[in-house]
Amino acid sequence: MYHGRGQRAEDSKLRAENCDLLVLNGALLTMAGGNTELCLSGFVAIRGGEIAAVGPMAAAPDPASAGTVVDAGGQLVMPGLVNCHSHAAMTLFRGLADDLPLMTWLYEHIFPAEARWVDPDMVYWCSKLAAAEMLLAGITTAADGYFYEYEAGRAFQDAGLRAVAAQGVIDFPAPGVPDPAGNVTTAADFIAAWQGRTSRVTPAVFCHSPYTCGPATLRQAKELARGQGVPFFIHVAETQAEVAQCREQQGTTPVRYLHGLGLLDPATVLIHCVWLTTAEIDLIAASGAAVVICPASHMKLASGVAPLRELLAAGVAVGLGTDGAASNNRLDLFREMDLVAKLHKVISLDPTALPAHQVLAMATQGGARALGLAARLGSLEPGKAADLIILDLRQPHLTPFYDADLLVYAARGSDVRTVIVDGKIVVRDRRLLTFDLAEVMARVNRLAARMRAGAG
Amino acid sequence: MYHGRGQRAEDSKLRAENCDLLVLNGALLTMAGGNTELCLSGFVAIRGGEIAAVGPMAAAPDPASAGTVVDAGGQLVMPGLVNCHSHAAMTLFRGLADDLPLMTWLYEHIFPAEARWVDPDMVYWCSKLAAAEMLLAGITTAADGYFYEYEAGRAFQDAGLRAVAAQGVIDFPAPGVPDPAGNVTTAADFIAAWQGRTSRVTPAVFCHSPYTCGPATLRQAKELARGQGVPFFIHVAETQAEVAQCREQQGTTPVRYLHGLGLLDPATVLIHCVWLTTAEIDLIAASGAAVVICPASHMKLASGVAPLRELLAAGVAVGLGTDGAASNNRLDLFREMDLVAKLHKVISLDPTALPAHQVLAMATQGGARALGLAARLGSLEPGKAADLIILDLRQPHLTPFYDADLLVYAARGSDVRTVIVDGKIVVRDRRLLTFDLAEVMARVNRLAARMRAGAG
Repeated sequence: MYHGRGQRAEDSKLRAENCDLLVLNGALLTMAGGNTELCLSGFVAIRGGEIAAVGPMAAAPDPASAGTVVDAGGQLVMPGLVNCHSHAAMTLFRGLADDLPLMTWLYEHIFPAEARWVDPDMVYWCSKLAAAEMLLAGITTAADGYFYEYEAGRAFQDAGLRAVAAQGVIDFPAPGVPDPAGNVTTAADFIAAWQGRTSRVTPAVFCHSPYTCGPATLRQAKELARGQGVPFFIHVAETQAEVAQCREQQGTTPVRYLHGLGLLDPATVLIHCVWLTTAEIDLIAASGAAVVICPASHMKLASGVAPLRELLAAGVAVGLGTDGAASNNRLDLFREMDLVAKLHKVISLDPTALPAHQVLAMATQGGARALGLAARLGSLEPGKAADLIILDLRQPHLTPFYDADLLVYAARGSDVRTVIVDGKIVVRDRRLLTFDLAEVMARVNRLAARMRAGAG
Repeated sequence: MYHGRGQRAEDSKLRAENCDLLVLNGALLTMAGGNTELCLSGFVAIRGGEIAAVGPMAAAPDPASAGTVVDAGGQLVMPGLVNCHSHAAMTLFRGLADDLPLMTWLYEHIFPAEARWVDPDMVYWCSKLAAAEMLLAGITTAADGYFYEYEAGRAFQDAGLRAVAAQGVIDFPAPGVPDPAGNVTTAADFIAAWQGRTSRVTPAVFCHSPYTCGPATLRQAKELARGQGVPFFIHVAETQAEVAQCREQQGTTPVRYLHGLGLLDPATVLIHCVWLTTAEIDLIAASGAAVVICPASHMKLASGVAPLRELLAAGVAVGLGTDGAASNNRLDLFREMDLVAKLHKVISLDPTALPAHQVLAMATQGGARALGLAARLGSLEPGKAADLIILDLRQPHLTPFYDADLLVYAARGSDVRTVIVDGKIVVRDRRLLTFDLAEVMARVNRLAARMRAGAG
């Protein structure tokens, strides 16, 4: 036994020597095995974009052997957060129309604005703004769905974010897809363009919903995703009105309807799932499909409260999403964690509901599992991608810091000082290193001013 | 008419010249009359701790005539936020015990920790930490209630925060009041020590609750407050269990019980009010008493959802509070605004419920009115105290910035760059100027370590 332990320590030491990047002296929250216990002072050694070794400082390699050293003293090192649902380009519509009835918001504000203002340029710059916002808030992976998604993929790639970028499919004329007959082909072209191109951007298919896509489109889009081995995303069961309409038109509830079309499998990600029957929760669990909950969006648009505890109890992989900035209005998973933890407590009148460690797991491992990336992301373990964030604990709202629960109830995206994606430092001392953020904000502000003025 | 307008402009100009402090070029959200429309570029002139003039840049005085000039270009200037309920010293217990049933949390963790660890030194340093956290999040006024409140008052005074500091009264042995027979006398001594002493700290009385204070104490404490002309605070109707117990023991509901004791008047502030009957809402409105809602605390402790819209509709003055850090776990009214706006939407399944402008009003004017300070605080208007905060809009999560609603749905305390209280700059470029924050964090961390170790 002693020999074995010594051998493992020796192996770990070997793996850690001569690394590209070495993070030292930080409190470590590895999330390995869902554990939220802290290692009070530890190191992470990174080589070739992967985590080479993780451990307590006593086992740390010689800093002189590392390419770059980051001193995380007084700080906390944890896996980068996984945002399982965004429409990055919609930053342009952030706060454009708040506090309105859902259909007024959608049909009188968002859809007309999208029809007029979404073009490749807008998608690139507004997605880049979203990427900056997410990275600066500790999100290292985003699952995105929009139109002109090729441009969104470019923005994520240029920003240094990891992404699952999904081309939108809808049975209406859409930006870049004037004829809906070409919607699945457009998605196929998008996948072909991105498949295997980079380690950070994975292409996927995003069918808008069962009420905006007919059954043929839904089946074809899922077949495309299956054939290409990429994830398939769909909004479903978001509102009571959607469920009522589905019952009327399809004679059944939305998830059951998708199941009947053969759409549920482990590569399908069901977004929202606010209104589910117990039978539907069982169907999802049995199929291996994943679910994404967007707490801020569900609250602000008054969609409802998803049966999250029931989904988790059934063993469903559940991730958290910010949704687009138009319905949130901020892309910060620390806030989503706080919202979801508190919402489920007050709704159930049970302060033990959805404890903080479960919420931390959803924002990291749960999200990675929902996106089919659990083997690569979601915890600090040797062999996983080197996506990690470093938070500054030397702040009044994080003092004292008894345990990791405080990350849910008191931390916020702005506490993140350093962000590493794929082994590269993309945010240092809260400054984004990958592009000129001021220029991107100026461009988006000019677009917003034109939109506000109603000019062409 | 023309002459009159010219005269007023001339008056404003005169008032603005030769001011102590001049804030220029910022977007102005004055909140005057509850209006949330922005003046895109304006000034605030401050003299002798008061706002001398406010207006568009076209009417700004010569900067050369001002003592100090703050350029708020690219930023937003608004009234400092009013936190209507805190237990500042409880920062020591932040995150000490999360996700527990209420009675376990209170009786097995918080009460024992308070009995052992609360002393004058603890109250001073932990309240100072809270003051730093609040100021850095844009809170310029806090209504606080605790034991050894003299020390809390000293901490607020030294920190540069404005406060209504209320000495705790409870019919059990309490920190600093070993014999409950002396609880009202202790409060009287506290008031005598602070009455008229400074412009920033107003003394008050904080009766813990109708279930921890007997009727004689409640009456005497209110009599004291009435006699001294100071506010009277009380926790009431926080949980269903409290209401049930009150019905059993007093034969009526908590607010009706307080009314029967003659406790409701415009200087009484009812904290929590989660569980009210319609008749009690009418009683509160008729009495002129104010209500304070603590959204994060109500959610995290699973107390319930207060009938906020009904209270506002009845014309009750409602303020927002953070509650103590032990049950929140953060003192940030921007987060409380976001939480309360979203919670009431999802609970009512109505996205138009509690619109952002109403929430902004609660965090500023509403809070000022609840504390009886509406004439001095809550808006940027000539003659009011110069308590204002400046937020940096040049950040991705605030881009684009269409209107003030975004302050509710996307801003956070960390967006506040500059804080002015009583005409003095207390936070500049996110640095607290009034004391050495690192020293205070170190002291509180040492207390926390001793507590964790269980040592004396």
